[in-house]
Amino acid sequence: MHVSLSPSAGVRWRPLPIPNIRLTRGLWAERQAVNRAVSLPHGRRMLEEWGNFNNLRLAAGQGSGEFRGYVFQDSDIYKWLEAASIELAQGHDPPIEAMVDETISLLAAAQAPDGYLNSHFQVVKPEARWTDLDHAHELYCAGHLIEAAIAHHRATGQTALLNIARRFADHIEALFGPGKRAGACGHPEIELALVELYRETNDPRYVRLAQFFINERGQNKMRGYGSFGAAYHQDRVPVRQATIVEGHAVRQLYLNAGVTDLYLETGEPALLNAMVRLWHDMTARKQYLTGGVGSRAHGEAFGEPYELPSRAAYCETCAAIASMMWNWRLLLATGEACFADALERVLYNGFLSGVALDGQRFFYENPLQSEGDHERQAWYACACCPPNVMRQIGLVGNYLATEEAGGVQVHQYSAAQIETEHAQLAIETNYPWDGEVTLTIEATHGAPWPLSLRVPGWCEGAPLQVNDEAIDQVLTSGAYAVVERAWRAGDHLRLTLPMPPRLTEPHPRVDPLRDCLAIERGPLVYCMEAADQAADIHLADARLSPNTPLRAHWRADVLGGVMTIEAQGQVADVRPWADRLYGPANSSRSPQREATLTAIPYFAWANRAPGPMRVWLPRGG
Amino acid sequence: MHVSLSPSAGVRWRPLPIPNIRLTRGLWAERQAVNRAVSLPHGRRMLEEWGNFNNLRLAAGQGSGEFRGYVFQDSDIYKWLEAASIELAQGHDPPIEAMVDETISLLAAAQAPDGYLNSHFQVVKPEARWTDLDHAHELYCAGHLIEAAIAHHRATGQTALLNIARRFADHIEALFGPGKRAGACGHPEIELALVELYRETNDPRYVRLAQFFINERGQNKMRGYGSFGAAYHQDRVPVRQATIVEGHAVRQLYLNAGVTDLYLETGEPALLNAMVRLWHDMTARKQYLTGGVGSRAHGEAFGEPYELPSRAAYCETCAAIASMMWNWRLLLATGEACFADALERVLYNGFLSGVALDGQRFFYENPLQSEGDHERQAWYACACCPPNVMRQIGLVGNYLATEEAGGVQVHQYSAAQIETEHAQLAIETNYPWDGEVTLTIEATHGAPWPLSLRVPGWCEGAPLQVNDEAIDQVLTSGAYAVVERAWRAGDHLRLTLPMPPRLTEPHPRVDPLRDCLAIERGPLVYCMEAADQAADIHLADARLSPNTPLRAHWRADVLGGVMTIEAQGQVADVRPWADRLYGPANSSRSPQREATLTAIPYFAWANRAPGPMRVWLPRGG
Repeated sequence: MHVSLSPSAGVRWRPLPIPNIRLTRGLWAERQAVNRAVSLPHGRRMLEEWGNFNNLRLAAGQGSGEFRGYVFQDSDIYKWLEAASIELAQGHDPPIEAMVDETISLLAAAQAPDGYLNSHFQVVKPEARWTDLDHAHELYCAGHLIEAAIAHHRATGQTALLNIARRFADHIEALFGPGKRAGACGHPEIELALVELYRETNDPRYVRLAQFFINERGQNKMRGYGSFGAAYHQDRVPVRQATIVEGHAVRQLYLNAGVTDLYLETGEPALLNAMVRLWHDMTARKQYLTGGVGSRAHGEAFGEPYELPSRAAYCETCAAIASMMWNWRLLLATGEACFADALERVLYNGFLSGVALDGQRFFYENPLQSEGDHERQAWYACACCPPNVMRQIGLVGNYLATEEAGGVQVHQYSAAQIETEHAQLAIETNYPWDGEVTLTIEATHGAPWPLSLRVPGWCEGAPLQVNDEAIDQVLTSGAYAVVERAWRAGDHLRLTLPMPPRLTEPHPRVDPLRDCLAIERGPLVYCMEAADQAADIHLADARLSPNTPLRAHWRADVLGGVMTIEAQGQVADVRPWADRLYGPANSSRSPQREATLTAIPYFAWANRAPGPMRVWLPRGG
Repeated sequence: MHVSLSPSAGVRWRPLPIPNIRLTRGLWAERQAVNRAVSLPHGRRMLEEWGNFNNLRLAAGQGSGEFRGYVFQDSDIYKWLEAASIELAQGHDPPIEAMVDETISLLAAAQAPDGYLNSHFQVVKPEARWTDLDHAHELYCAGHLIEAAIAHHRATGQTALLNIARRFADHIEALFGPGKRAGACGHPEIELALVELYRETNDPRYVRLAQFFINERGQNKMRGYGSFGAAYHQDRVPVRQATIVEGHAVRQLYLNAGVTDLYLETGEPALLNAMVRLWHDMTARKQYLTGGVGSRAHGEAFGEPYELPSRAAYCETCAAIASMMWNWRLLLATGEACFADALERVLYNGFLSGVALDGQRFFYENPLQSEGDHERQAWYACACCPPNVMRQIGLVGNYLATEEAGGVQVHQYSAAQIETEHAQLAIETNYPWDGEVTLTIEATHGAPWPLSLRVPGWCEGAPLQVNDEAIDQVLTSGAYAVVERAWRAGDHLRLTLPMPPRLTEPHPRVDPLRDCLAIERGPLVYCMEAADQAADIHLADARLSPNTPLRAHWRADVLGGVMTIEAQGQVADVRPWADRLYGPANSSRSPQREATLTAIPYFAWANRAPGPMRVWLPRGG
């Protein structure tokens, strides 16, 4: 899922190779350390326990017992392999290398002589290859193999896995395409993988095949499970005519990432126009405050506009990841800060909630409200999310900066070392806990070039100093501040992103959030957990109001160290309602008392004993 | 489902035989005429088209082709047969008699020599009888056969169908019970049927078997489909220990009806105590304003307390019917008006919405909000609801009155002739459109007896006149007004139930209804349909407030004649939110303009071109 663009028609900004951005400390460096030390070995164990590895052994003629799990079981191994490879790109790690090499050998043994590789079909029904594109996930699994192989090649320079993936890709390319077989996969994924394989190999057959698969969609032929219909499979309408995000959220967003990838290579305006239409539909009508998407468990689907229930929210972790993948590609295509803003919202909230602080329990669904009955699990029968989290955590640094011939762009903020063609940069910051960001030019070539720094949309009045002198310029929120000069080693910029806690309200058409408020600070969405409130406060009765005083407190003792927010809110007294559900309309509100409420970052919830949680609280008096 | 009590331990009030209450005109008389003329023949056609009749023919060795549909397909025929029999109880009808007799002949031919009767098992897997009590619905189907047979026997005095049912019941009784086979049906129904069979035959084996099946529950052994667990099958906890309604709503409420029936015969206090606990849990925490229950499509289940989403509401029509069945039995057991109040709420709202005004389209789900995508269907693959509606419509008159040795009780109001042991009564009223009710004693025995009239809980200050003289007594809402005297023929009472339109608000913990109001008038819940509003009003933006003026208008031209309500409300201007879902919390509300809004009775919605509908509207300024 790391993008490495060819010199293409639709590219505005170019991503950096993974090793060129190193997180030096802070929230993401900590998450990456846990990912490497805990999550990856945990994933290896789980993939053994749940039979995924044995499935491959069976395909290789080495295993015993029967194939276990879903038809797409191999894809979990591929995502884990990609995650491990991304870690290897950031540094030598013998235990991870050993796990990776063992897996590659197994895949080599399992691959059929003609290049085909899919343990389900090889073990369970070898005669049925490619007979059920709608449901069987063969091309989906191939896509994840290709992504893993590219990541491994980039990380190690070795070609063993890349060769396996290319043999399978060539097998597919020989079967599908104009004048060959028609069709597309019920679960998009191979499209973006084939575009990236083109970038890695420079072989245009792959991007042409991606284009073919994308063009095959929208014939309203695929039939979802049960009553889901063609939208479930992203087959209701041709991509270029799409006006709304719909159906299975992960499928929609993996497809959109692939379509945007195709635009990045072809520059075809109809593709980008469609993508921008869908992005507005999603962000203005179908996205949770956390950046999560997918309102319905039924069909794992986007809902209707403004259908955003908090407790029943699906918000699959994979959909959050897919949203970041898509936003990243839209940012590369357009250079518009709104996509980096949207990516940041998902990254710190709807995505990061997907993994426990200990790195070995995962959410599949990320609701915005719970009565205490929703907990992370060590693994899932359908385990798409955990290894997807692992590869995404490893990639976070890559989102920090891009470059182009004309300059360098900084999108996300973390303490880091960044190496570009123009310069070596060092960033110091305690972001997201604090909005002070210091960027030092450690080395550069001496010619003038513009440095662009994103001023997040949530931020008001960001002062910028260059070499301790204030820039005489009002920085616009939700845009890039551009400073161009002949930089010298030792030049430093200080960007201050004020992050007072703030209260947010929803669009009036969002029924489930009617008359509710949420707390945010900087890029973080906050929530209330019962664990942090006084014992006599029932979370359902807690209230906020637009003038509720809010105060941020660093609490090193809470959840491994987080910024908490104290709100002077209210608690409603619902005793007058005892044993009644409905009553005569009253002009006055329920009686209330003042109370101190404590909020924590949403991503950190459900890391203590199970208990109620709410992001949105009703307005009080 | 008609109850006819034996002289039993737990009975407070006794229902009347069906022919003793005749609806003379008004809403329910009209619905019954449509039921008889349209719905019953429509049902016959549908049961032919969907294969139910052919399944029976196959079992009888007469059909061709294959068994079609669900394992419980016979039950739809039985419910339709019961509905037809209930109509026959109210008057001779040769076409209906012919349909009924033909069906009984078919059932006689299909019944196995040992009394067993279930077309699915007889045709598809004769070797698998009674091997899957959790899921196979055999006892459930038997229960519906028994209910149909009792209805037919009561209506016609003929024993052909009753004998079929008794042979099957005896077959079951020989198999199950103490010292015989253990177990209970995954879908409760046979319990209430067996108690009624005892009442009809006076054979105590049947009530003992009902008791056995009820006592078998709660061993936490049954496994729901998917992840639903034992609560789905009403097997999580023993009946006498239950504290909450949970799991599949229809199963919970059919069980509760059966348990209350058992209490009516045994008078065992633990049963009634448990039922009253569950009733409070349901009505104070898990019931929609329409009386509908079942918040979740997933598992067709009750939700958590206060989990009452309007649009995603399941509110199965069968659950509304089951709620009435249960409330009726609780009323007979206790004589408490709250159960007649609850029955009335379901009857006029969450139940009556289940059938179109034309009598040939049916809702399975009855949500309280729609974007225009929810329409009634002519039939369903799982067609439990349509024939259930048919038998319920036929029974409405029976809910009007009961008697006991000491007097007569009137619970529901409609123009009707009522014959009791104490007296012949005539009721004149335009209820539910108007609250004037005149009751005339047409004949009586001369000795004093008390006449009880329910004053509905929604009603404030109901004046009562006897022979044109005001009764000097403040009538309590949600209770019975009791007038005892030596009545004479020609005595008349005039009860006035004021029904100004009123605004209702929800318990503050009902998140989806936060800050919303609904309109009610008398027993009717109202809703807004887009069809009745000015073209420039988006229903999602309509607003009410506690002081909104409301005015009732009789509109003969609308929906076959309904009382509409005009509200001087507001419409919010959401244009400032264009392309934004979330924004900084504002102390002031969105800008609004005044607007006239028109509400119609909820039961009549979706009888015109599809369009948005809402019961609950947000509060305006």
